[in-house]
Amino acid sequence: MIKQAVIMAGGLGTRLKDKTAAMPKGFIEIGGIAMVEWSVQKLFAAGIEEVIIGTGHCSEWYERLAKQYPCITLLKNDRYAATGSMGTLACCVPAVKGDFLLLESDLIYDSAGLAVLINETHQNVLLASGPTNSGDEVYLEADQNGNLTKHSKNRAVIGEPAGELVGITRLTKDTLDKMAAYMTAHLGDEPKMEYETAMAAVSQSAESNRIYIRKIEYYLWREVDDENHLAMAVNSIYPRIKEAESLRSVRREVLLNPGPATTSDSVKYAQVCADICPREQEFGDVMEWICRELSLMAGKPDRVETVIFGGSGTAADEVMISSCVPDTGKLLIIDNGAYGSRFAKIAGVYKLNFEIFKSSGFLPLDTDAVKTKLLEEKFTHFAIVYHETTTGLLNPVPELCKFCHEHSITTIVDAVSAFAAIPIDMDRDNIDFMASTSNKNIQGMAGVAFVFCRKEALEATKNYPMRNYYLNLWDQYQNFKKTKQTRFTPPVQALYALRQAIIETKLETIEGRYARYSACWDHLVRGVKKLDLKMLVAEEAQSKLITAIIDPPSPAYSFETLHDLSRSYGFTIYPGKLSDANTFRIANIGDIKPEEMARFVTVLEEYIGTLG
Amino acid sequence: MIKQAVIMAGGLGTRLKDKTAAMPKGFIEIGGIAMVEWSVQKLFAAGIEEVIIGTGHCSEWYERLAKQYPCITLLKNDRYAATGSMGTLACCVPAVKGDFLLLESDLIYDSAGLAVLINETHQNVLLASGPTNSGDEVYLEADQNGNLTKHSKNRAVIGEPAGELVGITRLTKDTLDKMAAYMTAHLGDEPKMEYETAMAAVSQSAESNRIYIRKIEYYLWREVDDENHLAMAVNSIYPRIKEAESLRSVRREVLLNPGPATTSDSVKYAQVCADICPREQEFGDVMEWICRELSLMAGKPDRVETVIFGGSGTAADEVMISSCVPDTGKLLIIDNGAYGSRFAKIAGVYKLNFEIFKSSGFLPLDTDAVKTKLLEEKFTHFAIVYHETTTGLLNPVPELCKFCHEHSITTIVDAVSAFAAIPIDMDRDNIDFMASTSNKNIQGMAGVAFVFCRKEALEATKNYPMRNYYLNLWDQYQNFKKTKQTRFTPPVQALYALRQAIIETKLETIEGRYARYSACWDHLVRGVKKLDLKMLVAEEAQSKLITAIIDPPSPAYSFETLHDLSRSYGFTIYPGKLSDANTFRIANIGDIKPEEMARFVTVLEEYIGTLG
Repeated sequence: MIKQAVIMAGGLGTRLKDKTAAMPKGFIEIGGIAMVEWSVQKLFAAGIEEVIIGTGHCSEWYERLAKQYPCITLLKNDRYAATGSMGTLACCVPAVKGDFLLLESDLIYDSAGLAVLINETHQNVLLASGPTNSGDEVYLEADQNGNLTKHSKNRAVIGEPAGELVGITRLTKDTLDKMAAYMTAHLGDEPKMEYETAMAAVSQSAESNRIYIRKIEYYLWREVDDENHLAMAVNSIYPRIKEAESLRSVRREVLLNPGPATTSDSVKYAQVCADICPREQEFGDVMEWICRELSLMAGKPDRVETVIFGGSGTAADEVMISSCVPDTGKLLIIDNGAYGSRFAKIAGVYKLNFEIFKSSGFLPLDTDAVKTKLLEEKFTHFAIVYHETTTGLLNPVPELCKFCHEHSITTIVDAVSAFAAIPIDMDRDNIDFMASTSNKNIQGMAGVAFVFCRKEALEATKNYPMRNYYLNLWDQYQNFKKTKQTRFTPPVQALYALRQAIIETKLETIEGRYARYSACWDHLVRGVKKLDLKMLVAEEAQSKLITAIIDPPSPAYSFETLHDLSRSYGFTIYPGKLSDANTFRIANIGDIKPEEMARFVTVLEEYIGTLG
Repeated sequence: MIKQAVIMAGGLGTRLKDKTAAMPKGFIEIGGIAMVEWSVQKLFAAGIEEVIIGTGHCSEWYERLAKQYPCITLLKNDRYAATGSMGTLACCVPAVKGDFLLLESDLIYDSAGLAVLINETHQNVLLASGPTNSGDEVYLEADQNGNLTKHSKNRAVIGEPAGELVGITRLTKDTLDKMAAYMTAHLGDEPKMEYETAMAAVSQSAESNRIYIRKIEYYLWREVDDENHLAMAVNSIYPRIKEAESLRSVRREVLLNPGPATTSDSVKYAQVCADICPREQEFGDVMEWICRELSLMAGKPDRVETVIFGGSGTAADEVMISSCVPDTGKLLIIDNGAYGSRFAKIAGVYKLNFEIFKSSGFLPLDTDAVKTKLLEEKFTHFAIVYHETTTGLLNPVPELCKFCHEHSITTIVDAVSAFAAIPIDMDRDNIDFMASTSNKNIQGMAGVAFVFCRKEALEATKNYPMRNYYLNLWDQYQNFKKTKQTRFTPPVQALYALRQAIIETKLETIEGRYARYSACWDHLVRGVKKLDLKMLVAEEAQSKLITAIIDPPSPAYSFETLHDLSRSYGFTIYPGKLSDANTFRIANIGDIKPEEMARFVTVLEEYIGTLG
């Protein structure tokens, strides 16, 4: 799995004169975006976790870029004016941990090229194209196995060219190390070495460093070194890249139902990958990475264990209820919506010793009454839904869980539609067990359920009775810890999608995500008020994630008509779920934009207009 | 969801003279395959369930094609010599059930065009390209909304062309009906009407029949009407289409582990689709179709109910054990491998009244002893693994289940790695409940578990105790029957992949699949014998799906080394699972070819050679 990319961006770009006197070449805009930013976006969308940029000339531009993209690492080549690109690349060596993609900074390219390199069986692969007639070609020569032997801008010194160098390469760390060593050995005779020179030299050394030339005859790309290239890029290559990429984009459907939520195209495409047996070490590493990253979103490092299961959010709820309460335990369940009721149903099926604390689906919970009950009736376990998907009601989880911990009561929280939007720290918030799923705010695909566990709380369940098999927490945890395998076949592709969703969550940050969701909610609430509709839950008690809107009082109102109209505009909405109030629900979770919510409000307005 | 495609293939193709005198134009080969066959393959790969071909001239060629592809329906235009393409299309009207793709038969095209049309928000959409300079262009004119108003081969009568007609269109059934009516109304003045004429006319009638022009400026396609076109297609367009499609192909990894199995690229790409709320009617229809088709693979029409869950094969096993045995029941479990043991573990967790019949993992089961035990100890339920994934041992399921039914014993079968390879009929084979999963022989992605139920047996579980929640059979079944929704969020994308996997299974047929698997097995067994290796299970007791091979006796043997060598050639193998024999296992299930197994045998040979 390729997790890193390196962009060499130290150069002066002198051939572009004024344009790059006070700006790195990569920041030249094409189609309204800096070339290098477009490249960075493509890399993250292709599943790269970290982009390392070797900077030099005007490095402050990259510092600003890195602020926008938290997963960029900058390393500066202080001697950029005195070295070639290999000098900049050598500065990046300490940050490179394994196989990586290597790119020049002044490129526009079809993202298909990244997928091709990532998909390659060869470990060192250089992307090449057919003739570009750019006037600045780097011709490549290959041996009979298709491996790089020579490169030159002089066509005459190359035999039959194996293609033209694009400037995107996949390398192993070992090959990179050898390239850096080659540079060091030749500092005297070639102080301004370009990275291609080191590649060609290393490719002829050891077998494991051979660099295979992967040629795409009609590849869409352009390096921009001068005004002429820039004109070619803008007028001819850019429109073709845009069209080629647009053919791969998926019809946009904005899901305003409370999950599964809208996903990015890159999450969708992350499911398309080479088949793998999930018991391979490589896939174990993927799952381990997923668990570690999810744990870091739920608490401080080394404080939380994430245990994954193939299943829905309800499966995760059932894992907690069936695995985290001993026979001697006594469980209080808050029921103020469908998901609280579900907790109770599950506890009933397993014949646990439990009671239900029933509360209104739309009025804030009476925390004093809950606390009194917890103590008076000596409950040992407490289960609550963080955010009731039914109504959008936010429960006072930190307050109640703090109280529970002060009285040694174990806390079990359904955070299915809260996690990855509302910032949570299980230690700070005194949550022992917490459930969520891949297809809500984390913005992955449905199929993976996870249970977050505070370490001590998890250890305590070790000898609890096993009440089911597939959904047993301790067994699943122990087995994964020992073997880096799940006990049963995991949903492999949903996990790859989840990996991509985590990459994208880290880029946005959870705070950034909640801010975006809140901006969507603001649009909705403004629209609702303007249309004189009423919300079920008082604004201050809302999660800002899901909003239950009371049906318009008009006798002509029909949810189905509103649903169908919305769907015709690409929005999916969802009915309410409470028996005691007629509502429809609008969720603003997933990969949606505030302007899309604004557009939905106009659809709502159009519909309300038809009611007279 | 677009389920059908119509190919108009009635024409004489006179401009190609000799080539098409005794053959329909679509059968001209480019790149070693008939144009129309390449098109049919692309349509099925894009998720089309049925291809309807309107034939005429030399229709026997299509009859032969339809024998190769069971999901082709032929309709003949007997008057093909007297009509235009619209006459052939009109003959197909009775078979069209909803939205469909309409194609000319003499096209080569980049499959991306199909995805674009399927992805479109417009319901009637015509694919257009930029200038082809083919000398035979059909120019299109559009209104200000981009809808078709006029078409002509005469550039002069078109204003600013909106593109050139490709010959691939997406239409609603209603639009088709109107086109047919238009043809009928104009039979007198235009007896040889082309379908484009009817499209242009209908597109200007009602709002719902407007045909939007979707232009892909650089689309790769060629219609072949004459020798000149054929030369263009062969020399220039075909290589570019091949390259464009190859960029989307996924690195081939042949999984010889016992599932998840190797999948086709089209199954992988079926996961990439517009986001949908799984509670939408449209998705309910997809799940219903999946259940119906799976049921038909497990028994006669209307005899089997398939109930789907998000989870692995073990989840399906747990569904059966926990949901299908009443408190008064007494269950006998055959344990001759890891999956039989798992049945017992599950029964133990739920504290059922059960006993284990232990038998060798590699010797045939003593059926007489089993029968005696069943009767003597008055068992009411019987659980067995059809084919032990552990060893490849095939259990005598039909024989034992027949005996059970004769004595009113309910039968529960784990057919996880048997279903969709070994032909099963639950009535004929006396199986009441049967578990399988999406990622074995059905060749889909991991994440969906299914339980097949004989209808009466399922009804009998109605009042059985609910021992868990997520995995309860009756609740899941009832809810889906009532609402066409699963109780909890299903793994949406794994279900779309399963839909595609079912399409591909129907094309291959289960018998065809088992024949292919058996051919792979033959290669393996020949290789094993040649290399003087021993198999754990006697040949005649093997399933021909999974083969446990006893470790070579050499002290130098290392599974890890063999594994890593195999992996370097693109083959993934798997260790054995029996405690009493050291084996490795080779599964020949999934989208693998006999020649790939032959190649694996050479890898095995290479490795054995190193042992000396």
